[in-house]
Amino acid sequence: MAPRTSHRAAPVHARLDDVTVQEALAALADPVRLRLVRELAGSADWSRACGSFDVPVGKAALSHHFAALRAAGLVEQRDEGPRRVNRLRREEFDARFPGLLALVLRGD
Amino acid sequence: MAPRTSHRAAPVHARLDDVTVQEALAALADPVRLRLVRELAGSADWSRACGSFDVPVGKAALSHHFAALRAAGLVEQRDEGPRRVNRLRREEFDARFPGLLALVLRGD
Repeated sequence: MAPRTSHRAAPVHARLDDVTVQEALAALADPVRLRLVRELAGSADWSRACGSFDVPVGKAALSHHFAALRAAGLVEQRDEGPRRVNRLRREEFDARFPGLLALVLRGD
Repeated sequence: MAPRTSHRAAPVHARLDDVTVQEALAALADPVRLRLVRELAGSADWSRACGSFDVPVGKAALSHHFAALRAAGLVEQRDEGPRRVNRLRREEFDARFPGLLALVLRGD
């Protein structure tokens, strides 16, 4: 039997060209997702598992928020054994929506 | 008796310094409001009454959307007799959130 590292399907990622500005704004306009993005921006790529963020939501809601961030091209995820780890797609997102991440990470 | 031009209270406008990036993003992440902003951007200041926009919502919803745009510092309104007319606060908004309006008006 092949080793099984996760029960979940591998995460699906957005092509940045397919993301509209409205989708990008909607992804970032939510306070929980804004916090996830800001925390990710301050962390090394692939260093943060989904459960490691300080946000006041349950597991199902957190999954939903990460799916929204993936769909907007903001986050890439991969499974490492039982952990799903993340990186901010900073360069790709910035190429598609110049300046938007910088505004969001300014923190005001 | 003083002339009465409107039954409504005069619109209240946001101080841009008080608008957070999350509020700005949330105001722009809605498809109806995005359309209002884009139509306003293509119109001369004060040339557009609230009822003149091609959006698929009723009067109460439209009022709500304009209130959200005012609160985010995107729109200034004034009453001219029975009409409430609008201008996009382009320069002020751009000074507070550089590049954000440009992204939104890019139209993709």
